[in-house]
Amino acid sequence: MSDTLDFFFDFSSPYAYLASTQVAAIAARANAKVRYRPMLLGAVFKAIGTPIVPIATFPEPKRLYVGRDLYYWAAHLSVPFRWPATFPMRTLAPLRLAIAAELEPRLIDAIYRAYWFENRDISDAVVLAEILAELGLDAALLARIESPEVKAALIAASDEAIAAGVCGAPSFLVRGHLFWGQDRLDLVERTLLGWEPPTV
Amino acid sequence: MSDTLDFFFDFSSPYAYLASTQVAAIAARANAKVRYRPMLLGAVFKAIGTPIVPIATFPEPKRLYVGRDLYYWAAHLSVPFRWPATFPMRTLAPLRLAIAAELEPRLIDAIYRAYWFENRDISDAVVLAEILAELGLDAALLARIESPEVKAALIAASDEAIAAGVCGAPSFLVRGHLFWGQDRLDLVERTLLGWEPPTV
Repeated sequence: MSDTLDFFFDFSSPYAYLASTQVAAIAARANAKVRYRPMLLGAVFKAIGTPIVPIATFPEPKRLYVGRDLYYWAAHLSVPFRWPATFPMRTLAPLRLAIAAELEPRLIDAIYRAYWFENRDISDAVVLAEILAELGLDAALLARIESPEVKAALIAASDEAIAAGVCGAPSFLVRGHLFWGQDRLDLVERTLLGWEPPTV
Repeated sequence: MSDTLDFFFDFSSPYAYLASTQVAAIAARANAKVRYRPMLLGAVFKAIGTPIVPIATFPEPKRLYVGRDLYYWAAHLSVPFRWPATFPMRTLAPLRLAIAAELEPRLIDAIYRAYWFENRDISDAVVLAEILAELGLDAALLARIESPEVKAALIAASDEAIAAGVCGAPSFLVRGHLFWGQDRLDLVERTLLGWEPPTV
Protein backbone atom coordinates (compact mmCIF):
# COMPACT_ATOMS: atom_id res chain seq x y z
CA MET A 1 0.00 0.00 0.00
CA SER A 2 1.11 3.55 -0.51
CA ASP A 3 -1.74 5.61 0.79
CA THR A 4 -1.97 9.06 2.23
CA LEU A 5 -2.92 9.64 5.84
CA ASP A 6 -4.74 12.95 5.94
CA PHE A 7 -4.45 14.40 9.43
CA PHE A 8 -6.94 17.18 10.19
CA PHE A 9 -5.71 19.18 13.15
CA ASP A 10 -6.00 22.36 15.14
CA PHE A 11 -3.48 23.25 17.81
CA SER A 12 -6.40 23.90 20.16
CA SER A 13 -7.10 20.20 20.69
CA PRO A 14 -5.10 18.17 23.23
CA TYR A 15 -6.23 14.94 21.58
CA ALA A 16 -4.95 16.26 18.24
CA TYR A 17 -1.65 16.92 20.03
CA LEU A 18 -1.49 13.29 21.13
CA ALA A 19 -2.30 12.18 17.59
CA SER A 20 0.32 14.51 16.14
CA THR A 21 2.98 12.58 18.04
CA GLN A 22 1.86 9.29 16.44
CA VAL A 23 0.93 9.95 12.83
CA ALA A 24 4.45 9.88 11.38
CA ALA A 25 5.21 6.47 12.88
CA ILE A 26 1.84 5.06 11.89
CA ALA A 27 2.26 6.25 8.32
CA ALA A 28 5.82 4.94 8.18
CA ARG A 29 4.74 1.47 9.31
CA ALA A 30 2.25 1.42 6.44
CA ASN A 31 4.62 2.95 3.90
CA ALA A 32 2.21 5.87 3.67
CA LYS A 33 2.64 9.62 3.76
CA VAL A 34 1.14 12.05 6.26
CA ARG A 35 -0.64 15.00 4.74
CA TYR A 36 -1.13 17.72 7.34
CA ARG A 37 -4.54 19.35 7.03
CA PRO A 38 -4.84 22.42 9.25
CA MET A 39 -8.28 23.68 10.15
CA LEU A 40 -9.77 26.25 12.44
CA LEU A 41 -11.85 23.99 14.65
CA GLY A 42 -14.07 26.87 15.74
CA ALA A 43 -14.99 27.49 12.11
CA VAL A 44 -15.80 23.80 11.62
CA PHE A 45 -17.96 23.73 14.76
CA LYS A 46 -19.76 26.87 13.68
CA ALA A 47 -20.36 25.59 10.16
CA ILE A 48 -21.81 22.25 11.25
CA GLY A 49 -23.65 23.62 14.28
CA THR A 50 -21.71 21.98 17.09
CA PRO A 51 -22.31 23.86 20.31
CA ILE A 52 -19.21 24.86 22.25
CA VAL A 53 -19.47 23.28 25.69
CA PRO A 54 -16.67 24.55 27.95
CA ILE A 55 -15.05 21.80 30.02
CA ALA A 56 -15.67 23.94 33.11
CA THR A 57 -19.39 23.38 32.61
CA PHE A 58 -19.11 19.59 32.38
CA PRO A 59 -20.67 17.59 35.21
CA GLU A 60 -18.03 17.25 37.90
CA PRO A 61 -17.28 13.51 37.38
CA LYS A 62 -16.98 14.04 33.63
CA ARG A 63 -14.69 17.05 34.09
CA LEU A 64 -12.46 15.05 36.44
CA TYR A 65 -12.45 12.10 34.08
CA VAL A 66 -11.49 14.11 31.02
CA GLY A 67 -8.67 15.73 32.97
CA ARG A 68 -7.28 12.32 33.92
CA ASP A 69 -7.95 10.77 30.53
CA LEU A 70 -5.43 12.99 28.74
CA TYR A 71 -2.73 12.16 31.28
CA TYR A 72 -3.57 8.45 30.97
CA TRP A 73 -3.20 8.55 27.19
CA ALA A 74 -0.06 10.66 27.33
CA ALA A 75 1.53 8.16 29.71
CA HIS A 76 0.30 5.23 27.63
CA LEU A 77 1.92 6.77 24.54
CA SER A 78 4.99 8.04 26.44
CA VAL A 79 4.23 11.58 25.34
CA PRO A 80 5.04 14.59 27.55
CA PHE A 81 1.85 16.38 28.49
CA ARG A 82 0.82 19.11 30.88
CA TRP A 83 -2.50 20.90 30.92
CA PRO A 84 -1.74 24.52 29.95
CA ALA A 85 -2.63 27.61 31.95
CA THR A 86 -4.65 28.99 29.02
CA PHE A 87 -7.48 27.00 27.52
CA PRO A 88 -9.08 27.45 25.11
CA MET A 89 -6.31 29.06 23.06
CA ARG A 90 -6.66 31.27 19.98
CA THR A 91 -4.86 29.33 17.29
CA LEU A 92 -5.32 31.54 14.26
CA ALA A 93 -1.70 32.77 14.32
CA PRO A 94 0.04 29.39 14.78
CA LEU A 95 -2.21 27.74 12.16
CA ARG A 96 -1.38 30.48 9.70
CA LEU A 97 2.29 30.13 10.56
CA ALA A 98 2.13 26.41 9.85
CA ILE A 99 0.64 27.19 6.46
CA ALA A 100 3.23 29.89 5.79
CA ALA A 101 5.92 27.29 6.56
CA GLU A 102 4.34 24.89 4.08
CA LEU A 103 3.18 22.59 6.88
CA GLU A 104 6.70 21.71 7.97
CA PRO A 105 6.23 18.79 10.38
CA ARG A 106 9.00 19.94 12.73
CA LEU A 107 7.25 23.26 13.18
CA ILE A 108 3.86 21.66 13.74
CA ASP A 109 5.38 19.33 16.33
CA ALA A 110 7.14 22.21 18.06
CA ILE A 111 4.02 24.38 18.25
CA TYR A 112 2.02 21.49 19.67
CA ARG A 113 4.65 20.76 22.26
CA ALA A 114 4.99 24.45 23.18
CA TYR A 115 1.32 24.62 24.03
CA TRP A 116 0.54 21.14 25.37
CA PHE A 117 3.69 20.52 27.37
CA GLU A 118 5.67 23.73 27.75
CA ASN A 119 2.68 25.89 28.68
CA ARG A 120 3.63 28.61 26.19
CA ASP A 121 1.22 31.10 24.66
CA ILE A 122 1.17 30.07 21.02
CA SER A 123 -1.18 32.94 20.15
CA ASP A 124 1.71 35.32 20.91
CA ALA A 125 3.90 36.32 17.94
CA VAL A 126 6.92 36.60 20.25
CA VAL A 127 6.51 32.97 21.27
CA LEU A 128 6.06 31.91 17.66
CA ALA A 129 9.24 33.79 16.75
CA GLU A 130 11.08 31.96 19.53
CA ILE A 131 9.86 28.63 18.20
CA LEU A 132 11.04 29.47 14.69
CA ALA A 133 14.44 30.46 16.11
CA GLU A 134 14.68 27.26 18.15
CA LEU A 135 14.13 25.26 14.98
CA GLY A 136 16.46 27.40 12.89
CA LEU A 137 13.59 28.40 10.62
CA ASP A 138 13.34 31.73 8.86
CA ALA A 139 11.91 34.45 11.12
CA ALA A 140 10.43 36.06 8.02
CA LEU A 141 7.80 33.32 7.94
CA LEU A 142 6.05 35.11 10.77
CA ALA A 143 5.47 38.21 8.67
CA ARG A 144 3.57 36.09 6.17
CA ILE A 145 0.78 35.13 8.57
CA GLU A 146 -0.97 38.42 7.87
CA SER A 147 -0.78 37.97 4.11
CA PRO A 148 -4.07 37.57 2.24
CA GLU A 149 -2.82 34.35 0.68
CA VAL A 150 -2.11 32.65 4.00
CA LYS A 151 -5.35 33.89 5.55
CA ALA A 152 -7.29 32.60 2.54
CA ALA A 153 -5.43 29.29 2.65
CA LEU A 154 -6.55 28.63 6.25
CA ILE A 155 -10.15 29.45 5.39
CA ALA A 156 -9.94 27.15 2.37
CA ALA A 157 -8.38 24.40 4.47
CA SER A 158 -11.16 24.67 7.05
CA ASP A 159 -13.75 24.53 4.28
CA GLU A 160 -12.07 21.40 2.93
CA ALA A 161 -12.31 19.80 6.38
CA ILE A 162 -16.01 20.62 6.53
CA ALA A 163 -16.50 19.22 3.03
CA ALA A 164 -14.75 16.02 4.09
CA GLY A 165 -17.30 15.52 6.88
CA VAL A 166 -14.93 16.36 9.72
CA CYS A 167 -16.78 16.97 12.99
CA GLY A 168 -13.91 17.27 15.47
CA ALA A 169 -10.17 17.11 16.00
CA PRO A 170 -8.17 15.11 15.33
CA SER A 171 -9.70 13.54 12.25
CA PHE A 172 -8.10 11.25 9.72
CA LEU A 173 -8.93 10.33 6.17
CA VAL A 174 -7.64 7.18 4.49
CA ARG A 175 -8.91 6.22 1.01
CA GLY A 176 -12.09 8.18 1.71
CA HIS A 177 -12.66 6.62 5.13
CA LEU A 178 -13.02 9.22 7.85
CA PHE A 179 -12.01 8.62 11.46
CA TRP A 180 -12.43 10.97 14.38
CA GLY A 181 -10.38 10.86 17.56
CA GLN A 182 -6.87 9.81 18.47
CA ASP A 183 -8.50 6.80 20.12
CA ARG A 184 -9.30 5.58 16.59
CA LEU A 185 -5.65 5.43 15.52
CA ASP A 186 -5.64 1.63 15.63
CA LEU A 187 -8.43 1.67 13.05
CA VAL A 188 -6.57 4.29 11.01
CA GLU A 189 -3.43 2.18 10.97
CA ARG A 190 -5.33 -0.96 10.10
CA THR A 191 -7.01 0.85 7.21
CA LEU A 192 -3.65 2.14 6.00
CA LEU A 193 -2.47 -1.47 6.05
CA GLY A 194 -5.28 -2.51 3.73
CA TRP A 195 -8.31 -3.18 5.90
CA GLU A 196 -11.60 -1.99 4.46
CA PRO A 197 -13.97 -0.55 7.06
CA PRO A 198 -17.56 -1.58 6.40
CA THR A 199 -19.72 0.62 4.21
CA VAL A 200 -22.77 1.70 6.18
CA MET B 1 -1.66 -10.05 39.06
CA SER B 2 -5.10 -11.23 40.09
CA ASP B 3 -7.21 -8.12 39.92
CA THR B 4 -10.85 -7.53 39.36
CA LEU B 5 -12.14 -5.80 36.26
CA ASP B 6 -15.27 -3.95 37.29
CA PHE B 7 -17.45 -3.45 34.23
CA PHE B 8 -20.17 -0.81 34.64
CA PHE B 9 -22.82 -1.33 32.01
CA ASP B 10 -26.32 -0.55 30.87
CA PHE B 11 -27.92 -2.43 28.00
CA SER B 12 -28.87 0.96 26.53
CA SER B 13 -25.32 1.70 25.34
CA PRO B 14 -24.01 0.28 22.05
CA TYR B 15 -20.44 0.96 23.15
CA ALA B 16 -21.10 -1.00 26.34
CA TYR B 17 -22.33 -3.82 24.09
CA LEU B 18 -19.04 -3.78 22.20
CA ALA B 19 -17.15 -3.79 25.50
CA SER B 20 -19.29 -6.63 26.85
CA THR B 21 -17.98 -8.82 24.04
CA GLN B 22 -14.36 -8.14 25.06
CA VAL B 23 -14.18 -8.03 28.86
CA ALA B 24 -14.02 -11.77 29.49
CA ALA B 25 -11.06 -12.26 27.13
CA ILE B 26 -9.25 -9.20 28.48
CA ALA B 27 -9.68 -10.36 32.05
CA ALA B 28 -8.61 -13.89 31.16
CA ARG B 29 -5.39 -12.66 29.52
CA ALA B 30 -4.57 -10.86 32.77
CA ASN B 31 -5.69 -13.69 35.03
CA ALA B 32 -8.33 -11.35 36.42
CA LYS B 33 -12.03 -11.68 37.04
CA VAL B 34 -14.84 -9.64 35.54
CA ARG B 35 -17.28 -8.18 38.02
CA TYR B 36 -20.47 -7.09 36.24
CA ARG B 37 -21.77 -3.81 37.62
CA PRO B 38 -25.21 -2.98 36.26
CA MET B 39 -26.41 0.59 36.39
CA LEU B 40 -29.30 2.58 35.11
CA LEU B 41 -27.44 5.06 32.94
CA GLY B 42 -30.32 7.52 33.00
CA ALA B 43 -30.10 7.62 36.79
CA VAL B 44 -26.34 8.26 36.61
CA PHE B 45 -26.81 11.05 34.05
CA LYS B 46 -29.54 12.61 36.17
CA ALA B 47 -27.48 12.42 39.36
CA ILE B 48 -24.38 14.03 37.87
CA GLY B 49 -26.24 16.51 35.69
CA THR B 50 -25.39 15.20 32.23
CA PRO B 51 -27.86 16.52 29.71
CA ILE B 52 -29.43 13.93 27.42
CA VAL B 53 -28.60 14.92 23.86
CA PRO B 54 -30.48 12.71 21.40
CA ILE B 55 -28.35 11.54 18.48
CA ALA B 56 -31.06 12.85 16.16
CA THR B 57 -30.16 16.38 17.28
CA PHE B 58 -26.43 16.00 16.58
CA PRO B 59 -24.98 18.11 13.80
CA GLU B 60 -25.37 16.11 10.59
CA PRO B 61 -21.67 15.19 10.10
CA LYS B 62 -21.41 14.08 13.73
CA ARG B 63 -24.59 12.01 13.48
CA LEU B 64 -23.29 10.33 10.33
CA TYR B 65 -19.90 9.74 11.92
CA VAL B 66 -21.28 8.17 15.09
CA GLY B 67 -23.46 5.87 12.98
CA ARG B 68 -20.43 4.67 11.04
CA ASP B 69 -18.16 4.55 14.07
CA LEU B 70 -20.10 1.74 15.73
CA TYR B 71 -20.00 -0.35 12.56
CA TYR B 72 -16.27 0.33 12.20
CA TRP B 73 -15.58 -0.84 15.74
CA ALA B 74 -17.87 -3.85 15.42
CA ALA B 75 -16.04 -4.92 12.26
CA HIS B 76 -12.66 -4.22 13.86
CA LEU B 77 -13.61 -6.45 16.80
CA SER B 78 -15.45 -9.01 14.62
CA VAL B 79 -18.62 -8.46 16.62
CA PRO B 80 -22.08 -8.73 15.01
CA PHE B 81 -23.83 -5.37 15.20
CA ARG B 82 -26.94 -3.81 13.74
CA TRP B 83 -28.48 -0.53 14.80
CA PRO B 84 -31.85 -1.43 16.35
CA ALA B 85 -35.22 -0.07 15.33
CA THR B 86 -35.83 1.27 18.84
CA PHE B 87 -33.37 3.67 20.44
CA PRO B 88 -33.21 4.71 23.16
CA MET B 89 -34.53 1.59 24.87
CA ARG B 90 -36.02 1.30 28.36
CA THR B 91 -33.66 -1.09 30.13
CA LEU B 92 -35.14 -1.26 33.61
CA ALA B 93 -36.57 -4.76 33.05
CA PRO B 94 -33.48 -6.40 31.50
CA LEU B 95 -31.17 -4.82 34.09
CA ARG B 96 -33.38 -6.14 36.89
CA LEU B 97 -33.46 -9.52 35.20
CA ALA B 98 -29.66 -9.58 35.09
CA ILE B 99 -29.62 -8.86 38.81
CA ALA B 100 -32.29 -11.49 39.51
CA ALA B 101 -30.09 -13.97 37.63
CA GLU B 102 -27.11 -13.02 39.79
CA LEU B 103 -25.39 -11.32 36.85
CA GLU B 104 -24.99 -14.52 34.87
CA PRO B 105 -22.61 -13.58 32.03
CA ARG B 106 -24.40 -15.74 29.46
CA LEU B 107 -27.63 -13.91 30.16
CA ILE B 108 -25.98 -10.49 29.97
CA ASP B 109 -24.35 -11.44 26.67
CA ALA B 110 -27.63 -12.74 25.28
CA ILE B 111 -29.59 -9.62 26.25
CA TYR B 112 -26.94 -7.40 24.67
CA ARG B 113 -26.97 -9.41 21.49
CA ALA B 114 -30.76 -9.48 21.38
CA TYR B 115 -30.86 -5.71 21.39
CA TRP B 116 -27.72 -4.71 19.49
CA PHE B 117 -27.76 -7.35 16.78
CA GLU B 118 -31.09 -9.16 16.72
CA ASN B 119 -33.21 -6.00 16.94
CA ARG B 120 -35.39 -7.44 19.71
CA ASP B 121 -37.34 -5.37 22.22
CA ILE B 122 -35.56 -6.16 25.48
CA SER B 123 -38.02 -4.00 27.43
CA ASP B 124 -40.68 -6.61 26.62
CA ALA B 125 -41.17 -9.38 29.21
CA VAL B 126 -42.14 -11.80 26.44
CA VAL B 127 -38.78 -11.25 24.75
CA LEU B 128 -36.95 -11.63 28.05
CA ALA B 129 -38.80 -14.89 28.68
CA GLU B 130 -37.72 -16.10 25.24
CA ILE B 131 -34.11 -15.26 26.02
CA LEU B 132 -34.27 -17.17 29.31
CA ALA B 133 -35.74 -20.15 27.45
CA GLU B 134 -33.07 -20.00 24.74
CA LEU B 135 -30.42 -20.18 27.46
CA GLY B 136 -32.19 -22.88 29.42
CA LEU B 137 -32.50 -20.54 32.39
CA ASP B 138 -35.38 -20.65 34.87
CA ALA B 139 -38.43 -18.72 33.61
CA ALA B 140 -39.24 -17.92 37.24
CA LEU B 141 -36.37 -15.41 37.26
CA LEU B 142 -38.60 -13.06 35.33
CA ALA B 143 -41.14 -12.89 38.13
CA ARG B 144 -38.43 -11.63 40.46
CA ILE B 145 -37.81 -8.40 38.53
CA GLU B 146 -40.75 -6.78 40.28
CA SER B 147 -39.54 -7.79 43.74
CA PRO B 148 -38.56 -5.00 46.12
CA GLU B 149 -35.15 -6.63 46.63
CA VAL B 150 -34.26 -6.64 42.94
CA LYS B 151 -35.57 -3.11 42.42
CA ALA B 152 -33.56 -1.89 45.39
CA ALA B 153 -30.46 -3.73 44.18
CA LEU B 154 -30.52 -1.88 40.85
CA ILE B 155 -30.91 1.47 42.58
CA ALA B 156 -28.03 0.58 44.92
CA ALA B 157 -25.89 -0.54 41.99
CA SER B 158 -26.54 2.73 40.17
CA ASP B 159 -25.64 4.65 43.33
CA GLU B 160 -22.40 2.68 43.55
CA ALA B 161 -21.56 3.64 39.97
CA ILE B 162 -22.17 7.29 40.80
CA ALA B 163 -20.03 6.99 43.93
CA ALA B 164 -17.24 5.45 41.84
CA GLY B 165 -17.16 8.54 39.61
CA VAL B 166 -18.75 6.88 36.60
CA CYS B 167 -19.93 9.40 34.01
CA GLY B 168 -20.92 7.16 31.11
CA ALA B 169 -21.12 3.61 29.77
CA PRO B 170 -19.16 1.49 29.54
CA SER B 171 -16.89 2.27 32.46
CA PHE B 172 -14.21 0.13 34.01
CA LEU B 173 -12.50 0.14 37.37
CA VAL B 174 -9.14 -1.55 38.00
CA ARG B 175 -7.40 -1.07 41.36
CA GLY B 176 -9.23 2.22 41.83
CA HIS B 177 -8.41 3.48 38.32
CA LEU B 178 -11.51 4.48 36.39
CA PHE B 179 -11.76 4.27 32.61
CA TRP B 180 -14.64 5.36 30.42
CA GLY B 181 -15.36 4.06 26.95
CA GLN B 182 -14.74 0.82 25.10
CA ASP B 183 -12.05 2.75 23.22
CA ARG B 184 -10.05 2.72 26.49
CA LEU B 185 -9.93 -1.08 26.69
CA ASP B 186 -6.23 -1.13 25.75
CA LEU B 187 -5.54 1.02 28.81
CA VAL B 188 -7.79 -1.20 30.93
CA GLU B 189 -5.93 -4.31 29.83
CA ARG B 190 -2.55 -2.69 30.36
CA THR B 191 -3.61 -1.66 33.87
CA LEU B 192 -4.82 -5.18 34.60
CA LEU B 193 -1.37 -6.38 33.51
CA GLY B 194 0.33 -4.16 36.07
CA TRP B 195 0.70 -0.74 34.48
CA GLU B 196 0.04 2.15 36.84
CA PRO B 197 -1.76 5.06 35.17
CA PRO B 198 -0.39 8.42 36.33
CA THR B 199 -1.92 10.07 39.36
CA VAL B 200 -3.22 13.50 38.37
